Amino acid sequence: MRVEGKDRRTIWAPAGGDVSILDQARLPYELRVVELRTAADAARAIREMWVRGAPLIGAAAAYGLALAIREDPSDAAIDRASAALRETRPTAVNLAWALREVREAVLPLPPAGRAGRAYARAAELCEDDVRTCRAIGEHGARLLREAYERGGRARPVQVLTHCNAGWLATVDWGTALSPIYLAHREGIPVHVWVDETRPRSQGLLTAWELGQEGVPHTLVADNAGGHLMQRGLVDLCIVGTDRTTSRGDVCNKIGTYLKALAAHDNKVPFCVAAPHSSIDWTLEDGVRDIPIEQRDVAEVLRITGRCDGQLRTVEIGPPGVRARNDAFDVTPARLVTWIVTERGMCPASREGLLSLYPERR
Amino acid sequence: MRVEGKDRRTIWAPAGGDVSILDQARLPYELRVVELRTAADAARAIREMWVRGAPLIGAAAAYGLALAIREDPSDAAIDRASAALRETRPTAVNLAWALREVREAVLPLPPAGRAGRAYARAAELCEDDVRTCRAIGEHGARLLREAYERGGRARPVQVLTHCNAGWLATVDWGTALSPIYLAHREGIPVHVWVDETRPRSQGLLTAWELGQEGVPHTLVADNAGGHLMQRGLVDLCIVGTDRTTSRGDVCNKIGTYLKALAAHDNKVPFCVAAPHSSIDWTLEDGVRDIPIEQRDVAEVLRITGRCDGQLRTVEIGPPGVRARNDAFDVTPARLVTWIVTERGMCPASREGLLSLYPERR
Repeated sequence: MRVEGKDRRTIWAPAGGDVSILDQARLPYELRVVELRTAADAARAIREMWVRGAPLIGAAAAYGLALAIREDPSDAAIDRASAALRETRPTAVNLAWALREVREAVLPLPPAGRAGRAYARAAELCEDDVRTCRAIGEHGARLLREAYERGGRARPVQVLTHCNAGWLATVDWGTALSPIYLAHREGIPVHVWVDETRPRSQGLLTAWELGQEGVPHTLVADNAGGHLMQRGLVDLCIVGTDRTTSRGDVCNKIGTYLKALAAHDNKVPFCVAAPHSSIDWTLEDGVRDIPIEQRDVAEVLRITGRCDGQLRTVEIGPPGVRARNDAFDVTPARLVTWIVTERGMCPASREGLLSLYPERR
Repeated sequence: MRVEGKDRRTIWAPAGGDVSILDQARLPYELRVVELRTAADAARAIREMWVRGAPLIGAAAAYGLALAIREDPSDAAIDRASAALRETRPTAVNLAWALREVREAVLPLPPAGRAGRAYARAAELCEDDVRTCRAIGEHGARLLREAYERGGRARPVQVLTHCNAGWLATVDWGTALSPIYLAHREGIPVHVWVDETRPRSQGLLTAWELGQEGVPHTLVADNAGGHLMQRGLVDLCIVGTDRTTSRGDVCNKIGTYLKALAAHDNKVPFCVAAPHSSIDWTLEDGVRDIPIEQRDVAEVLRITGRCDGQLRTVEIGPPGVRARNDAFDVTPARLVTWIVTERGMCPASREGLLSLYPERR
């Protein structure tokens, strides 16, 4: 997507070369491209969240392993690098999966051919992700097109989103934001309400993305969405998902459930952009079966922003205050109107998902 | 309530003397008592939010007018000071009301007797507020007592609150927190989930109050409450109200509606502490009839905290990002389980409120 007028991806590399990423830890305040030269560089980028979002973490890990193989293509070196990369974010499903994909592609080959194959496989994983995201966008753009028609083509479509499920969380296009980008490029007037998304404030990344792409948007506190829906100011909610159960329960950034409740109460369609990789066919009841990651309470108690021309972090609250930081919540399928995957849209139900993925019957 | 082990109020004054307040703009980081010597001092304290919360703003305005009269008891001076004080927070209903109360008490008197009467009337308004809050606490504590019994006296009562409807918003005791303080002093084990309450983060004041009083509590992001309720970690929600309609719709800090939706979805009682002064008998449908104050977007885009031992304000978001800041939302009566007033508890309905205020029939 566009950054300062130029088309960018979140990660890129020439075959056999160093890997470039956008440093997301400094966004939206500063645009910095970081070169990753070794697997250790890649591990650091993942651990310190210079790259984030499940699909992008997978891509960075795949390229990290390619960097390791470029240096030493032996089985032992591949094992060491895989283990080190896997450890960086132990809960990210895509990370382990992407490492496995690269390993399985290179291990049958003689050492001399491994680096080339590793780079090629990492590049394929990136292209797959781009295709998946773009397909989600094409299917989901229908929702915006229809909302525009329902409004008599008289006013912009008002979309609310939570967290960042944009291109920064993927290689390009994003998941929840992909339909917005495609509708916008098609000429449908869109305005996006962007939830701040405390405690990590990923809404600021969403606002940055939308701004760079020229999509009108307004930042609001996480508390505001229900009120906006109650006053008729939202036509559609679109969010991403970290894990989707076989019946359509959605585990996503903490606070998603509250917005889904408000959407339901105000008859606003609540749509979830779910790449197939997010669907966990082994789970049914998300509230019962999905353990919720507890993250460092420093995310609740510290906030970073600009002050006197530099980035500073302030601590909030009375000294020593106790906090709790659940990273995700579960939105039951009954509150979800549509699930949008790369194969199309379906109701949030077992039958709905199976209609798109009949091979799972 | 207790501050550093001593009993304090938010405002106090000897008859005819200077007026003391706790400077809330520096809380929860620093405890500072400010002396108000003139009406201009009082106006500044209200405007700059050293005092906040409708009941306390009323008390500060009443004492501000007493300070003016101490200096010059003429009709012209009283008019001037009233106008200047009223302008500080034009939307605060209690402010205009408190000024009127003091004016009406002193105008019939000869100038020489006015200052004494003004101080006495201001002190009465404060005592009325303390009595009202304490009565709300006594009625509301029943809810905590019953929740403790329902839990088999086996575990602390888990209460969730939003914003600050504590003693800092009143002269003493608070509204929503008053039942918690009384239950705690009675020996009922209580734990409070404190919403951060962006954009102004008044939850930090709530955490400070609870900490000073020794009530166990945990600060959470505004996004977390729905998830906590879904996981059975909340027995009861209690919030305040800025304006309550005759049928029990509640206009309170933005985000209250989202928590009420989650409470309803999880069968958690949602209780509103509503002093009689918050009930607007002329309104019925809160969503239709209550205009929502739009506040400065700087509240969304700036956050103050501690950094390197001093208070600093950081700016968040991409430079120039657009924001919106609705200060309140409306929770429809259907989502409210109990309204707690100084006269007792009732269902959130016209009949319920009339059962407590039969003179309004």
